[in-house]
Amino acid sequence: MSAAAFQPPPRRRLAPKLDLAVEDQLRYLCKGAVQVERLDELRKKLERSTATGLALRVKVGFDPSAPDIHLGHTVLMRKMKHFQDLGHEVVFLIGDFTGLIGDPTGKKATRPVLTRAEIEANAETYKQQAFKILDPEGTVVDFNSRWLAALGAEGFIRLASRYTVARMLERDDFHKRFRSGQPIAVHEFLYPLAQAYDSVALQADVELGGTDQTFNLLVGREIMARYDLEPQVILTTALLEGTDGVEKMSKSMGNYIGVSESPGQIFGKVMGISDELMWRYYLLLTDETEDRILEWRAGCASGARHPRDLKLELARRVVADFHGAPAARQAVEEFDRVFRLKQAPESAPGRAQSGATKLLDLMIEQRLAESKSEARRLIKDGAVSVNGAKTTDPQLVLEAPGEYHLRVGKHRFLKLMLRAE
Amino acid sequence: MSAAAFQPPPRRRLAPKLDLAVEDQLRYLCKGAVQVERLDELRKKLERSTATGLALRVKVGFDPSAPDIHLGHTVLMRKMKHFQDLGHEVVFLIGDFTGLIGDPTGKKATRPVLTRAEIEANAETYKQQAFKILDPEGTVVDFNSRWLAALGAEGFIRLASRYTVARMLERDDFHKRFRSGQPIAVHEFLYPLAQAYDSVALQADVELGGTDQTFNLLVGREIMARYDLEPQVILTTALLEGTDGVEKMSKSMGNYIGVSESPGQIFGKVMGISDELMWRYYLLLTDETEDRILEWRAGCASGARHPRDLKLELARRVVADFHGAPAARQAVEEFDRVFRLKQAPESAPGRAQSGATKLLDLMIEQRLAESKSEARRLIKDGAVSVNGAKTTDPQLVLEAPGEYHLRVGKHRFLKLMLRAE
Repeated sequence: MSAAAFQPPPRRRLAPKLDLAVEDQLRYLCKGAVQVERLDELRKKLERSTATGLALRVKVGFDPSAPDIHLGHTVLMRKMKHFQDLGHEVVFLIGDFTGLIGDPTGKKATRPVLTRAEIEANAETYKQQAFKILDPEGTVVDFNSRWLAALGAEGFIRLASRYTVARMLERDDFHKRFRSGQPIAVHEFLYPLAQAYDSVALQADVELGGTDQTFNLLVGREIMARYDLEPQVILTTALLEGTDGVEKMSKSMGNYIGVSESPGQIFGKVMGISDELMWRYYLLLTDETEDRILEWRAGCASGARHPRDLKLELARRVVADFHGAPAARQAVEEFDRVFRLKQAPESAPGRAQSGATKLLDLMIEQRLAESKSEARRLIKDGAVSVNGAKTTDPQLVLEAPGEYHLRVGKHRFLKLMLRAE
Repeated sequence: MSAAAFQPPPRRRLAPKLDLAVEDQLRYLCKGAVQVERLDELRKKLERSTATGLALRVKVGFDPSAPDIHLGHTVLMRKMKHFQDLGHEVVFLIGDFTGLIGDPTGKKATRPVLTRAEIEANAETYKQQAFKILDPEGTVVDFNSRWLAALGAEGFIRLASRYTVARMLERDDFHKRFRSGQPIAVHEFLYPLAQAYDSVALQADVELGGTDQTFNLLVGREIMARYDLEPQVILTTALLEGTDGVEKMSKSMGNYIGVSESPGQIFGKVMGISDELMWRYYLLLTDETEDRILEWRAGCASGARHPRDLKLELARRVVADFHGAPAARQAVEEFDRVFRLKQAPESAPGRAQSGATKLLDLMIEQRLAESKSEARRLIKDGAVSVNGAKTTDPQLVLEAPGEYHLRVGKHRFLKLMLRAE
C-alpha cells in the first residue's frame, strides 16, 4: 500500500519571526531537549528549509481526553512555539481515532471511549489553552481519524507488516511487562504503529514529544522509511518536575500548577519553588536562552543578583503567559503587598507569655495603643492585623499556643510567643 | 464492540443421512482425528442438535490461492463430509480477505496478492474439486471478507485487544522464531485473530483443520468466549503421508497424488504404496470405520485376506471419488491387464550369461523361435516384449547388465541375467 490514499497539504512558506543563523536555530530548538534523533538530519532540514523557503512540518500528538493542562504540558507547547518562532508549521494533532476506540480492555478508567462531540469539545479547550503559547496562525489543528479510519482493516494489516514483534518488545514498558509476565494485549502493538502512520500521512519533518514518547517517535522514523519517506527528526522534551522539585509534575501528585488557576495561585506557587528548581523552570517554561540563564545563575552565586528578583520575574512571566501582562503586573503588586504586610521588620519587639490574652489588653500592655478606646477604634478601622490578616473584632482572644505577628497601623509591630499554660 | 455488525444466517434443520446414536456419531467424527478440544463439548453439541433438530455449523477455512488439491487436502474434506453425513451444515470458508492482502512483507512468493476475479475463479475450482467429496446441498461456500472488511481499523484494534502477546508467542512457530531471533512481523499476530473472528461472525459450533492449524483454531475458542459466545469445538485431522510413506504429502516433495490426475495415474500411484501405508489411507481417505479396517488388517495377518486385493479396492475407491465408478472399474481392468502382461510366471526358465547379445540370436538359442525368419516375424508382429514393453526392432541388442524378462506370444517366457563381461 502506498501512502497515496491520503494527500497531506503542501508545505507552507517559511515565515520566521526570529532571524537566526542555522547553528543558532539549532541551539534554540535544542534548548531543554532530552534527545534529538538526529541532530545532523535536523540541521540538513533547517538548511533546506532556508534554501527552499518552505516551512518544516512539525507534528505533535495529543490525547483527546482530559485537556486540563498544567505547566508540565506547556514544556512541549513551548518547544512547538520555538519552531513557530523560526517560521515552521506546527501540526497540533489530536488523536481522536484512538480516542474513539478508548481502552478496549476496559481496564483503564482513564481511557474511556469518547464521543465525537466530547472530542470536539476537548479539542476546543485544548486550543484555548494551547493558543496562550502557540501562534494560532502557524498552527494546524488536525485529527488523525481523517487518515486512520480510511486505512481500513486491510491497511492496518499492511501497516502492521512493517514492524516486528521483537522490535516492539524492545519498548521499555513492554519489555518489563513481558519479562514479568504482565499481560500485553495485541492491540497495544498497534497504537505505536498508528501514531507512526500519522507521520506517514502528514509527511512530518519533525515530531516532538515527551521522553515517555521516545519509542513511539522512533517507530515513526522507521515506518516512514518503510513507506519510502524521509524519516522525521524526533525531539523529546524533558518532563517538568512539580513544585516539590522531585516528582514529575502531575495532578495526582498534587505538585502541579494548572494553567487555568488564578493569577494569584500561579504566582504564589511559582514563588514557592526552590532556587534550584527556578533555573529548570526558566529553561523549560520560558524562551530565555541557556546562555542567559547560566549568566543569571552565576550572578546569583556571586551575590550580584538576588534569586528572589529572578523568581518574581519568572512568576510574572508564567502568569503573563496564561492571564496576560496586566494580570501578571497586578499579581506582582498583590504578592508584594501581602508579602510586606506579613513581614514584620527584623527589629520588631518580641514578647513571650503563657496562657490566653485578649488582643485589646495586649495592645495596651505593649503600648501599641494609648487607651482601650483607641485600641478599639484601631481594630474597628482595620488598622490591626494578626499574622497578616486584618481583624475587626475588638473581643478577639489569642489563645492557641504559637507565634503571632501583630501589626498596628503602618509602623508598630509585635512578635508574641504564646506558650501553653 | 459486539458481533452484531454481521448477522450469521440461522441454523439449518438437521438432515442426517446416517442414523447413528450419539456415541457412534462421536466415533465416526473422531476417526482419524488428531485432537478434539473438547470431546465432552462435542458430545453436548451433538445431543443438543438431536434434541432441537438444528444442525451444527461446521467451519473450515481454505486459502484462496492455488486450489490444485491433492489427496492430502481431501482428508479434511472427508471429515467435513462425515459431519454432513450426520446432517450438519458445513461452511467452506474461503479466506479471501487475507488473500486480497497477500503477504505484505513480500517475502513469500507463494502468497501473492490476488485479484477479486482470481479469487472467484479459484473458489470455482475449489468447489469443483471439493464437491467430489462434499454434498453441495449441505455446503455453504462463504468468503470472510464479508465481515472482516466491515470490521474496519477500529474493529480490528478492538479484536486485537482481546488476546495477549504472550499467548500469541506460545504458538510453536512464533516461539521458535522469537527464540532464535528470526523476525515476526506484527501483522502475523493479526491473522490468527482474523481467523478467530470468522468463528465469531459465523457463530461456528465446530472448526476443522489440519494439525498445523491447531493454534489458530484454539485462538478461535478463546476469542469466541471473549465475545460471549459458546466456544467452538475444534477437531484437527492428521497430515497424510505421501506415497513414500514417510514425508507429508506435498507437491514439492513429489510424493503426492493429485485429484486431477488421470484415473490410471491415481490408480497406479495407490497400488504403489506400502501395505502399511494402505491402512493409513483407508483410515484417512475412506468412510470405513476403524473397526472394519482393523478387522481387515487382522485378516491379512492371518493370511485369510490378501493385501493386494484390499489395495486394489482402495485404489478403485480413490479413483471413483474423483473420476466416478465407471472410470474406476476401467482403471482396475487396465491395471490388471498390464500387470498380467508384465508378470512372467514363476516357472519361467532362467539363463545367465556375460556380454551383450542380439535379441534375435537369443530367441534361437533359447528356442523361443524355430528360425531367424520366424523370430524376425514375431518381433515385427509385436508378439515379443522385453520387460513388459513390446519391441518391433529385429536388430535389438541387449547389452546393459541386469535382468531381462522376455515374453514371446502368450506362453513363452525367459528370464535373462546379463552380467558385465
